[in-house]
Amino acid sequence: MKLYDCKPAPNPRRVRIFMAEKGIEIETVQIDLGSGEQFGEVFMKINPDCAVPVLELDDGSYISEVFAICHYLEDTQPEPSLLGTTNEERARILMWHCKVEQQGLAAVADAFRNTTKRMKDHAVTGSVSYPQIPELAERGRSRVQEFFLKLDKRLADNEFVARDRYSIADITAMVVVDFAAWVKLSLPEDGINLRRWYESVSGRPSAAA
Amino acid sequence: MKLYDCKPAPNPRRVRIFMAEKGIEIETVQIDLGSGEQFGEVFMKINPDCAVPVLELDDGSYISEVFAICHYLEDTQPEPSLLGTTNEERARILMWHCKVEQQGLAAVADAFRNTTKRMKDHAVTGSVSYPQIPELAERGRSRVQEFFLKLDKRLADNEFVARDRYSIADITAMVVVDFAAWVKLSLPEDGINLRRWYESVSGRPSAAA
Repeated sequence: MKLYDCKPAPNPRRVRIFMAEKGIEIETVQIDLGSGEQFGEVFMKINPDCAVPVLELDDGSYISEVFAICHYLEDTQPEPSLLGTTNEERARILMWHCKVEQQGLAAVADAFRNTTKRMKDHAVTGSVSYPQIPELAERGRSRVQEFFLKLDKRLADNEFVARDRYSIADITAMVVVDFAAWVKLSLPEDGINLRRWYESVSGRPSAAA
Repeated sequence: MKLYDCKPAPNPRRVRIFMAEKGIEIETVQIDLGSGEQFGEVFMKINPDCAVPVLELDDGSYISEVFAICHYLEDTQPEPSLLGTTNEERARILMWHCKVEQQGLAAVADAFRNTTKRMKDHAVTGSVSYPQIPELAERGRSRVQEFFLKLDKRLADNEFVARDRYSIADITAMVVVDFAAWVKLSLPEDGINLRRWYESVSGRPSAAA
C-alpha cells in the first residue's frame, strides 16, 4: 500500500493519525497542493476529484475519500479498533463521525475555501472552477462556533466524542479544531469539557502524525 | 427497532430503500417536517439535530445519520450485502458513496434549502437559524449538473455506481436524481449511461419504499 498525502492538509492528516493509532507504516507520496499538483494530468489519473488522501492498494487500484480509506484499514487490521467492536458501538461511532464531518469539518472548509486567496477560483474541491462566496464563509464561521458549543456539551458526560472509546470521531474532531485555527477560530474560553478533551487527544503520540 | 421517518423526504427514503432491499420491515413513526415537528421538544430528545431518519434500537438508544443507520442494518443483517463483501469491494463502495453524498446530495441540498420559501430561515439542517444564500443555491445547481456528467461517464463502463454490484452508492445516487427534480433539474438529454442506469435502479421494487 501507498498513501498519496500532503503533510500540511487536514484530510490526509486524519488518515495518518488513524494509521499511527494502529501502528500501520506505509510509503507516502507528497502531493504539492500549493503548486496545484492535484490538477495535473498524472494525479488526475489517481483521483479525478483532485484531492488527497488516496490509498493505492497492492492490486494497483486507488481508494480516495478519508472514510473509505479508514474503513479499509480497519477491515484489514481491526486492532486497536477505531470504528467500534459491536454493532451498536459502531453505529454510535459512525453517527458521531457523520455529525463531526458535516457540522464541524464542512463548516471550517466553507470558511477556509471561501476566503483564502489561493482558492479564489477553487472554492469547491475538484477540477471545475467555482468562485468564492463570502457569505458562505461567514455562515461557516458561525457554524464552527455552534459546533464547538455542541461538542463541549457532548463532552461534559463523555470522555470521548462517541462515549468512552477513542475513535475516528475524535480524530476528525481534533483535526477540525486544528483546521479552525487556520481561519482564526479557537475553542471557546469557557468550553472546559472541550478543552479537557482536546488536551487529551492532542497529547496522544498519533496526533503528531 | 423503530424508524422515525418522513415519507416525502429524501434522506429517510434512502434508509427505507436500504431496508426494502434486505427485506427488513419495522415500525415507522412519521415526523411532519412541513409543520416543524422536528423542532419540537419531543423530537429534539430523539435527535437534537432536528433531522430524520432516526433508528430507535431495541435498547431504547437512538441512531441518527443515514450512513450510520445503514451500516448498523448491514452489520445486523449482512445479506443481501449493500456495503460490499470483501475489504476491497467495501472500500470501493464507500468511496463512491462518499463522492455521491458530497458531490451530488450536498449540491442538491444547497440548491433546495437556499431557495425554498419554507426554509427561509432554516437554510442549514438543525435548530439554529441561518438565512438563505442565493449564490450558494446557484452554485449547487451547477454542481448537480457537473455531478450528472461525471456519473454518466462513470456508468459508461460500469453497470452500477461502484462497479458490478448494486449498493448503497446506487441508492443514494438514485435519491439524488429524484431530489434534483424538486429544484427542476433533470438528467442531461444525452446522458445515455445515466438514463440506462436510472431506469434500471428505479425499476427495482425497493425504489417504491
